Amino acid sequence: MTEFMGKDFLLDTETARHLYHTYSEHLPIIDYHCHIPQREIYENRKFENIAQVWLGGTSINPDGSKTVFGDHYKWRLMRCNGVPEEYITGDKPDFERFEKFAETLEKCIGNPMYHWCHLELKKYFGYEGILSKKTAKEVWDLCNDKLQNDPNLRVQGIVRSSNVRFVGTTDDPVDDLAWHKKLKDENTVEGVTVAPSYRPDKALNIHKEGFAEYICQLAKVSGMELNTAADVRNALENRLDYFVERGCKVTDHGLDSIPFTCPDEAAATAAFAKAMRGEAVTDRERDDYQTYMLYELGKMYAEKDIVMQIHYGAIRNTNEKMFRDLGPDTGFDMIGSPDCSVTIGKLLSVLTQEGKCPKVILYSLNPIDLDMLATMCGCFQDSSARSKIQLGSAWWFGDTKDGMEKQLKTLARLGVLGNFVGMLTDSRSFLSYTRHDYFRRILCSVIGKWVENGEYPNDEDALKQIVEGISYYNAERYFGL
Amino acid sequence: MTEFMGKDFLLDTETARHLYHTYSEHLPIIDYHCHIPQREIYENRKFENIAQVWLGGTSINPDGSKTVFGDHYKWRLMRCNGVPEEYITGDKPDFERFEKFAETLEKCIGNPMYHWCHLELKKYFGYEGILSKKTAKEVWDLCNDKLQNDPNLRVQGIVRSSNVRFVGTTDDPVDDLAWHKKLKDENTVEGVTVAPSYRPDKALNIHKEGFAEYICQLAKVSGMELNTAADVRNALENRLDYFVERGCKVTDHGLDSIPFTCPDEAAATAAFAKAMRGEAVTDRERDDYQTYMLYELGKMYAEKDIVMQIHYGAIRNTNEKMFRDLGPDTGFDMIGSPDCSVTIGKLLSVLTQEGKCPKVILYSLNPIDLDMLATMCGCFQDSSARSKIQLGSAWWFGDTKDGMEKQLKTLARLGVLGNFVGMLTDSRSFLSYTRHDYFRRILCSVIGKWVENGEYPNDEDALKQIVEGISYYNAERYFGL
Amino acid sequence: MTEFMGKDFLLDTETARHLYHTYSEHLPIIDYHCHIPQREIYENRKFENIAQVWLGGTSINPDGSKTVFGDHYKWRLMRCNGVPEEYITGDKPDFERFEKFAETLEKCIGNPMYHWCHLELKKYFGYEGILSKKTAKEVWDLCNDKLQNDPNLRVQGIVRSSNVRFVGTTDDPVDDLAWHKKLKDENTVEGVTVAPSYRPDKALNIHKEGFAEYICQLAKVSGMELNTAADVRNALENRLDYFVERGCKVTDHGLDSIPFTCPDEAAATAAFAKAMRGEAVTDRERDDYQTYMLYELGKMYAEKDIVMQIHYGAIRNTNEKMFRDLGPDTGFDMIGSPDCSVTIGKLLSVLTQEGKCPKVILYSLNPIDLDMLATMCGCFQDSSARSKIQLGSAWWFGDTKDGMEKQLKTLARLGVLGNFVGMLTDSRSFLSYTRHDYFRRILCSVIGKWVENGEYPNDEDALKQIVEGISYYNAERYFGL
Repeated sequence: MTEFMGKDFLLDTETARHLYHTYSEHLPIIDYHCHIPQREIYENRKFENIAQVWLGGTSINPDGSKTVFGDHYKWRLMRCNGVPEEYITGDKPDFERFEKFAETLEKCIGNPMYHWCHLELKKYFGYEGILSKKTAKEVWDLCNDKLQNDPNLRVQGIVRSSNVRFVGTTDDPVDDLAWHKKLKDENTVEGVTVAPSYRPDKALNIHKEGFAEYICQLAKVSGMELNTAADVRNALENRLDYFVERGCKVTDHGLDSIPFTCPDEAAATAAFAKAMRGEAVTDRERDDYQTYMLYELGKMYAEKDIVMQIHYGAIRNTNEKMFRDLGPDTGFDMIGSPDCSVTIGKLLSVLTQEGKCPKVILYSLNPIDLDMLATMCGCFQDSSARSKIQLGSAWWFGDTKDGMEKQLKTLARLGVLGNFVGMLTDSRSFLSYTRHDYFRRILCSVIGKWVENGEYPNDEDALKQIVEGISYYNAERYFGL
Repeated sequence: MTEFMGKDFLLDTETARHLYHTYSEHLPIIDYHCHIPQREIYENRKFENIAQVWLGGTSINPDGSKTVFGDHYKWRLMRCNGVPEEYITGDKPDFERFEKFAETLEKCIGNPMYHWCHLELKKYFGYEGILSKKTAKEVWDLCNDKLQNDPNLRVQGIVRSSNVRFVGTTDDPVDDLAWHKKLKDENTVEGVTVAPSYRPDKALNIHKEGFAEYICQLAKVSGMELNTAADVRNALENRLDYFVERGCKVTDHGLDSIPFTCPDEAAATAAFAKAMRGEAVTDRERDDYQTYMLYELGKMYAEKDIVMQIHYGAIRNTNEKMFRDLGPDTGFDMIGSPDCSVTIGKLLSVLTQEGKCPKVILYSLNPIDLDMLATMCGCFQDSSARSKIQLGSAWWFGDTKDGMEKQLKTLARLGVLGNFVGMLTDSRSFLSYTRHDYFRRILCSVIGKWVENGEYPNDEDALKQIVEGISYYNAERYFGL
Repeated sequence: MTEFMGKDFLLDTETARHLYHTYSEHLPIIDYHCHIPQREIYENRKFENIAQVWLGGTSINPDGSKTVFGDHYKWRLMRCNGVPEEYITGDKPDFERFEKFAETLEKCIGNPMYHWCHLELKKYFGYEGILSKKTAKEVWDLCNDKLQNDPNLRVQGIVRSSNVRFVGTTDDPVDDLAWHKKLKDENTVEGVTVAPSYRPDKALNIHKEGFAEYICQLAKVSGMELNTAADVRNALENRLDYFVERGCKVTDHGLDSIPFTCPDEAAATAAFAKAMRGEAVTDRERDDYQTYMLYELGKMYAEKDIVMQIHYGAIRNTNEKMFRDLGPDTGFDMIGSPDCSVTIGKLLSVLTQEGKCPKVILYSLNPIDLDMLATMCGCFQDSSARSKIQLGSAWWFGDTKDGMEKQLKTLARLGVLGNFVGMLTDSRSFLSYTRHDYFRRILCSVIGKWVENGEYPNDEDALKQIVEGISYYNAERYFGL
């Protein structure tokens, strides 16, 4: 019986333990894609209690409407346990909400949340016990005391004490990056680079509500008139330059599915004009517009040596009622099954024909796409970077022990694992850096097993290079930090 | 070397052995979905020989045509081993058929049939040896002797000695449930509730042969005139009430794929009228009709607190020639790949918007759908039940050791495993209760490994609750028994 | 710690070691599907150096254009490691190319290439060390010395010393099989049958460039006039007979996806005529033509008792630029996701209705199809052969340790593993016979685990039959060698 989440958690061979503790554990973290708010970093937010950190809450907007914020992973589990919504995103007292969560967690055997929570309690709060309904009060008191009094548990303290070197937030092109500017100019978090990442989804989602309004904002921010698809492209370049000046190294596209018609400026402009008139665009028009835009942005990223992330495969806001009640990103998204094998392949092919294929990281939410994507990566590699096209780390619903093992093994089978740029949190939570620790343990476990089974030589130097590379150095080189 | 299918079969850790023998093994069985005939329970059928039990046979219909009945799992394996059809569903002597099966089984290493058969031989016949061509005669004699002489090997004896508390058979809405009535009124099988389940597929399959005739039957049985889709809906409600009076707790929908257009009574009625005139309906008309009906039935189930099972993903009667020869359910079905991610999501969403989403259990025959379905479940949970929307147990071709492990781990990763309602046999065979045993061993093995790897605390009380819940209590609560 | 790729490589239980060394290791090899050139066998090619063997090179065509040939698996990995193309398929010195490959290999932990290379170095060159940048020169010298001086390292020596009994090359119907004739007439490689396999893809790819020219070639070779689809069918039969006379036992279809409309000669002829006029055919026309042809060929194979292989699921030449530069089969193909569940099922069904379904082996490049295909096989078995419809061995991107385990376990769960016809190399490389060794180790490991877990009896005789059958005898019987 291995100790519950002890020092050698998940390190199930001698080699795994050696590799992790010697080469991986102490390396800094490059968190190249996350969703934490720039403002809260700058303002060094202090949390009132552990419910606020873990379950978030509700903020009242100027117009009286309310916005819920927090960790939809935890919300989903609570709903799944039959907890009434008022304890989840509602206005029940924070301790009661926390207690309901603790009670839920007891049943979450085999769920990554069980590990994430206990890793966080251990690392940030020094709690070595087990969270359950019974211990909820004890944990509540311990955590809140530290959150109030320990500077290492304010946002900047967390980032620093987590040994983070680079934080890539996720930002809209129209954002003025005001807090990013201050963070950079004032070198607010010593030793940590906080950089924006560029996520222009709203400029691509021509078929969604609010597109025209968004384009007006983009016109204003860029100081340009936007009458054609090419104008939008130029405004996006204007904003990308603005982001790059502020340290942006990576972009992100989060589309439900990736279209490919054929990049055609006239067709894109026709669709754009229609959308701006407030008319509904057809699926084909949406695809024409998005194809043109992805193609133009891809070239742009190649020219500026910015990494392009493509995330796809979610069906969002599946539960219409709850979407109306709580808005997006509140735990009502699911895995979809769009087939993007041909379309992404064609997009990368036309970019390659132009000699302007950027570095790309491909992520599908559906694990059944992993083999397909890993082989797609292999079709577009070239000598401009080691594993220029990357199979992205296990993502969102895939970000589990089994999911990470599967991603690592798929990449190893079908590509060169040694060049993998590794983990990112993709998280809204400040305490989620422990997921890098989780990932590194799983990485060392997978590698350790291969070595101990005689499937790879026990060559200290080669293993050091592979483990250190995936833990830190590959990302440093790949993103040009 | 672990003993072949010994007392600790599949229990590969100390924790697994402890959990299984202490908390799971002796709990009663709730078999909430199976296909055993109500009549044979009431009549307490006695089997002539083990070939009749395992391989079934042929019955001659009044019109001289014949119907084959029996276990298509076994038939498929025999065909796969090149056994001529006359030994499978034909009229070769029963012992020769049994011998051919025994010979086939020897090669079925890694197939669940190997385990099912030996679990049954051990539990019901006390046979501790290995079935093979060589031992076929010995097993034949032993089994037949018991089948003839041991009252525990007549149907009621099997059910009772298997510690079954609830049997949910599968019945058509037009069925008069005559045997169910007797079973209930006379309390035939003491201590065992035998209840009908409601499976209205024929009323939904507007595009299949025999639809109009079926509707006439339904009209007669319900005493209603059926001129519109709403009339059909009402007749189905009439029959559902009849079923509920007789103890029905659960319904089942076995569609090849789940459509969703938009519930539209007029469109459904137009399609219905066309089908009743004997005209072929288009795919769209079929979808309109089925969508309306699934929507109406879903609301009805919610109102009456009946659980809705949805099974999909089979391609049935793939081999046209054999379908013509032997009819449906004779071993010529396969796994299909319909993408129902969007359609099921929309169905559950409209039901939720109406405030009338019933408890739903989702099953796809294709294991590539598991992650998608598990995340869909998470989008529609609420406080009316613990894990109101359930990821169904591994089903049919998935009902194997690997398949069950995969279902359990997927559910654990993406939901709350502790609330799972667990196993059902879905079987036509009276001896298949051993599959509950098979499932419980696999469950304890999976959990045992987590505990021994330090991934979940070795907390006796929490583990007891989880194991007992999944083995018995969750189903008892969920189905309201 | 198990020795790196030692004598018991991958044999992780006592039972696995026993089964492999006693029953599998020394059996001859039937390599029923590969891509090695008949001419090089006959001419007993001698290789200049290990780079020529492993990485191939470039040959200059009469018209001054060049053709690259070699192992695209290795090329992909080098590109993935950022190696410039001039070292991969270009004209850099062979040693430098080899060194770049060695350097790449170090990072390929978890990739089958790591094992394939070391198995080959060990078996054919007696090298017991580890290939890396550091040892590249030592390996280079050792290998080249043997390639120049050891007759066992010329093509015929390799085949003979690998204990190969049957080699099925892959040949176009228009091929005159000149070298095959000599190989057979002169019994060039004593004890080894080298037979052609029939791969008529070009006659089916009505929608691809060069179709009309190909049909002209076929007309010439068959001495027939080809004006209708039926004419093409007849010419193909003419050529198949020619192949069968020269020992052909198996055919192969490598389509991206398998269509099924309904076999209709008139529709096929209409599509054919259009294509011959140089007009583009529609998708429907392509499907009509291909369906007719697959149906007719299927019947033909059944009549002549030739095995039909169907490989599908690739997206070829994904990278248009590199396809233009280097041509097909140079490492720019990927896994696709076509859904062929219904279409293949219908093809096999109509053939079965005609009483003319041949033996078929089904392979999809996408591992997500495995369960579906395994259940499809089960729908068309009959008593004309043991497991007449086979789930093909893990193929191409699937041909890895994990991929083979998955194929074996899927087949075991859903069919009769004991009848599996086993491994083939599908390779362009003469040294790849070690993959049979790799497969057999994995097979014995999977079986060993089942036995040691008590999931199958430790019955020496039954295990011997299963292991020997899958290693050798099943293929011998199935292909009628």
